[in-house]
Amino acid sequence: MATQMIILNGGSSSGKSGIVRCLQDVLPDPWLAFGCDSFVDAMPAKLRASDEGIAFAADGEVSVGAEFRALELAWTAGIVAMVRAGARIIIDDVFLGGAESQRRWQKALGDVSVLWVGVRCDSAVAAVREVARGDRIQGMAASQAEVVHQGVSYDLEVDTTHTESLVCARTIAAHVG
Amino acid sequence: MATQMIILNGGSSSGKSGIVRCLQDVLPDPWLAFGCDSFVDAMPAKLRASDEGIAFAADGEVSVGAEFRALELAWTAGIVAMVRAGARIIIDDVFLGGAESQRRWQKALGDVSVLWVGVRCDSAVAAVREVARGDRIQGMAASQAEVVHQGVSYDLEVDTTHTESLVCARTIAAHVG
Amino acid sequence: MATQMIILNGGSSSGKSGIVRCLQDVLPDPWLAFGCDSFVDAMPAKLRASDEGIAFAADGEVSVGAEFRALELAWTAGIVAMVRAGARIIIDDVFLGGAESQRRWQKALGDVSVLWVGVRCDSAVAAVREVARGDRIQGMAASQAEVVHQGVSYDLEVDTTHTESLVCARTIAAHVG
Amino acid sequence: MATQMIILNGGSSSGKSGIVRCLQDVLPDPWLAFGCDSFVDAMPAKLRASDEGIAFAADGEVSVGAEFRALELAWTAGIVAMVRAGARIIIDDVFLGGAESQRRWQKALGDVSVLWVGVRCDSAVAAVREVARGDRIQGMAASQAEVVHQGVSYDLEVDTTHTESLVCARTIAAHVG
Repeated sequence: MATQMIILNGGSSSGKSGIVRCLQDVLPDPWLAFGCDSFVDAMPAKLRASDEGIAFAADGEVSVGAEFRALELAWTAGIVAMVRAGARIIIDDVFLGGAESQRRWQKALGDVSVLWVGVRCDSAVAAVREVARGDRIQGMAASQAEVVHQGVSYDLEVDTTHTESLVCARTIAAHVG
Repeated sequence: MATQMIILNGGSSSGKSGIVRCLQDVLPDPWLAFGCDSFVDAMPAKLRASDEGIAFAADGEVSVGAEFRALELAWTAGIVAMVRAGARIIIDDVFLGGAESQRRWQKALGDVSVLWVGVRCDSAVAAVREVARGDRIQGMAASQAEVVHQGVSYDLEVDTTHTESLVCARTIAAHVG
Repeated sequence: MATQMIILNGGSSSGKSGIVRCLQDVLPDPWLAFGCDSFVDAMPAKLRASDEGIAFAADGEVSVGAEFRALELAWTAGIVAMVRAGARIIIDDVFLGGAESQRRWQKALGDVSVLWVGVRCDSAVAAVREVARGDRIQGMAASQAEVVHQGVSYDLEVDTTHTESLVCARTIAAHVG
Repeated sequence: MATQMIILNGGSSSGKSGIVRCLQDVLPDPWLAFGCDSFVDAMPAKLRASDEGIAFAADGEVSVGAEFRALELAWTAGIVAMVRAGARIIIDDVFLGGAESQRRWQKALGDVSVLWVGVRCDSAVAAVREVARGDRIQGMAASQAEVVHQGVSYDLEVDTTHTESLVCARTIAAHVG
């Protein structure tokens, strides 16, 4: 069956955004890209530094509250509805809850045909790239590198530690049905 | 019935984004904000300068093609599904097709309770603000100021020519059921 | 004597950046634009949240430390050297120290021909625009609106409360020798 | 003698900006960072797509005109003046003219103590990273990868093809006197 959705999961600074842009470039059909960053941008500014919404600690720890979860559930349902209405969609997400986060998506997805992709990056290398980006709280990369993959099942995994985004994207594209 | 969606329509540089951020600040519940800018950002870069996607002429004229329309239809369906799943949503849009663009939304909306808001700005003033923004093609504001409102029905209209965004937002918020 | 530099001073969200972009558009010669924002961007990230560098309190209060002052002094000298080397330059600054900040510039300027411009905006209106921008700590506009002008002498003042950036820019441009 | 300036030269998408941010992080003293991007941002928008200023062709070729050169000369003089006034400065530049571009800097520098750093990246890898960035005209990386180094002398060279920005930055930092 034709792949309708690609869901990338990986820690902060693992290289998801670069892979998404490359996927949009190499895939022959047009794919829309959404993800946790664009979702957070859609929230009221006052929820972006709040216990109810999403809070970033000085050590890079990220915590989300009840309002965030409720809005995320509706957002997820809407993304799946876009797919059912005919859009091809790439999601880049950070499964802070590991397997639990994947189950949340699976419940919403029903019979939508998804390619699950794990985006790995050596924790030390991700931490180093976080410094080079300059716009992230230091510590996020290291704290998320492993935990987001715990108990998650993938169709394929790519590793950006020694492989460029475009090469990873081509590997993923080859698995798109 | 409680308002589930607020749809703002107005030309480029009419002040929609500022009103959206103010609405998110003054409304007591959390509202998610999406719009034509975030939709265009979700498209592949190669569609952002293409006849099939969206093209910006040197004089500020914007034209959209078949791929754009197909993706937009699916996106619209998904936004409405987010609302049905419980999210409150503010949309800022540019009805390049006037009444026709509004009908496209109406077909997708069904019985969702929407507050339709026209965002007006004197064409010359919008053109002047376009220069001050510095990141828009000059000519968009003037070419869109009137045409986007042709044949469109609103629950209320605000005018940013002499009124600050936050004041417009408070007027709109007072109409939210 | 031909004006070599234009220095705009005003509080946060008073509309300086918009005026600068309009000035660059309406002035027939090319003018380079620098200011406190581009200076802060040039600093190491670790100085951007530090007592030694620049710190932003939750209420919008801004404080700067010894390292900031030392770097600023060198930066100011360099900007003046650019002017002596033939560049026309527009500066937008926030005189947190009022007259004292102006004296710092004057000491560096020597006989450079400067047009001093005060950018006023009603404190309540600036606060309202700060909400609409969405990317500033709320409180900066109100706390800076008056204090930055204390004891400062200008060649002309513009007020963005009821006047568009481009109109202010044209007024300023008419005073450029 | 203590290093007063670090000048990095490399093609588009060779990884200069990441190295600069890492250098600012690892160097114990505060270093200001400027470069061709911040210089172009300081120019009037109307010069950013002009024969007199800087023009980007659809194939990634960059050409600069007489106004650009005149402003650049003054800017260079000002940067050197900041150094003489006590600021430590990192420059990231693209020597479109190769050795000629270096001579321009050398004429302005006099006896300032500079560490010259070549930032290499395999042309194909830079082209691939250009796709992943998504905000650059495709073709710039490939067209600049070699030409910017022609005839240029360095104190050291780093290569980002297989080495992370932070590791390159540490190598450079070890050469700072």
